[in-house]
Amino acid sequence: MTLSTTPRSTVKRGKKRAVTERSALHEVLDAGLVCHLAVVVDGAPVVLPTGYGRDGDTLYLHGSTGARTLREAGAGVPVSVAVTLLDGIVYARSVFDHSMNYRCAVVHGTAVPVLDPEAKAHALRVLTEHLSPGSWDYARRPSPKELAATAVLALDLAEASVKIRTGPPSDEEEDVATSRAWAGVLPVRTAYGPPEPCPLLAGGTAVPEHVSGRR
Amino acid sequence: MTLSTTPRSTVKRGKKRAVTERSALHEVLDAGLVCHLAVVVDGAPVVLPTGYGRDGDTLYLHGSTGARTLREAGAGVPVSVAVTLLDGIVYARSVFDHSMNYRCAVVHGTAVPVLDPEAKAHALRVLTEHLSPGSWDYARRPSPKELAATAVLALDLAEASVKIRTGPPSDEEEDVATSRAWAGVLPVRTAYGPPEPCPLLAGGTAVPEHVSGRR
Repeated sequence: MTLSTTPRSTVKRGKKRAVTERSALHEVLDAGLVCHLAVVVDGAPVVLPTGYGRDGDTLYLHGSTGARTLREAGAGVPVSVAVTLLDGIVYARSVFDHSMNYRCAVVHGTAVPVLDPEAKAHALRVLTEHLSPGSWDYARRPSPKELAATAVLALDLAEASVKIRTGPPSDEEEDVATSRAWAGVLPVRTAYGPPEPCPLLAGGTAVPEHVSGRR
Repeated sequence: MTLSTTPRSTVKRGKKRAVTERSALHEVLDAGLVCHLAVVVDGAPVVLPTGYGRDGDTLYLHGSTGARTLREAGAGVPVSVAVTLLDGIVYARSVFDHSMNYRCAVVHGTAVPVLDPEAKAHALRVLTEHLSPGSWDYARRPSPKELAATAVLALDLAEASVKIRTGPPSDEEEDVATSRAWAGVLPVRTAYGPPEPCPLLAGGTAVPEHVSGRR
């Protein structure tokens, strides 16, 4: 299944980096942890980072019901959401051809608030299992009061684009032939460090497998 | 020096996480590599990742002169730029108190195109030295043609906010007292892997110190 090609979601720059498979969109969204949500407030753009989770072709976003940006985003106005993964710094023979290796998904659409309690609980489960797989069944589930204090938005993935850059620098032929400079990629890697227990934790509380085994 | 407190840049949610020192803004911007730029196009927000660099209280952004978002952003319209660093996954005793440790800077303002060749070369040096410190003096400098093909925007850091979350989960007292669940932080760490030479590189070309020694 290929991604939509509305004017807004058609990649115009760097077409060779555009990816049109829907599976690629899902992979980038599933690999990220933070998205950047943009919304228009009083005519000006406001961008902020937030958590998210994906269920099929629905992206869930959440935050406090008091957060203005999230309120605006859920009022039926257009939003734009980006998830970007940085994979490497591309050192070219020329400054001009320096670049980054990355995977990026951008979604456009209208965010809809999730209000039905059952649908909201489902969305929170999706959000929780994206942020911290295993936590929904391990930690205390949200109370009705906590559910009410959480704003959840749903965004359809119908209109989206994916750009991916991989591989070595794309230097000019002349630079490759004449330059004696080193060129290549410095990979950027993200990994989890050793779990740091909460200081209020009772001594001897074991780190559960869904935390210690997370990769 | 403290950050401005216009209505837009005053942190309303999670005030305890707001940081008002200008040095904190600089630190977050200097620690990141990718920013997310939001601009309004045809009434709808568009967010995309891009490289940046900071010189004093000026943020430089760049891209191809053919990129529509960058053209729009440089036409004297308001933009919003966010740089977010994810530091850890916060596992709480309750699902509701799960969170992330992060550092985030958000800048609001009007991006101005940098057109003067000397000023543009300076901005490109700042951008290059942010992406790949050492490359400006090591790689081939931009030709006049390459300079002309690069769009550079300058954004004043006058209106900005910083939010930082650190430390263990903030569980409800009752959960701390009664839960037997593990709680704590799983640190997220970003590091550079071993340099991968370009396949077209002449054998025996040494990896320069500014690449091999980058931390």
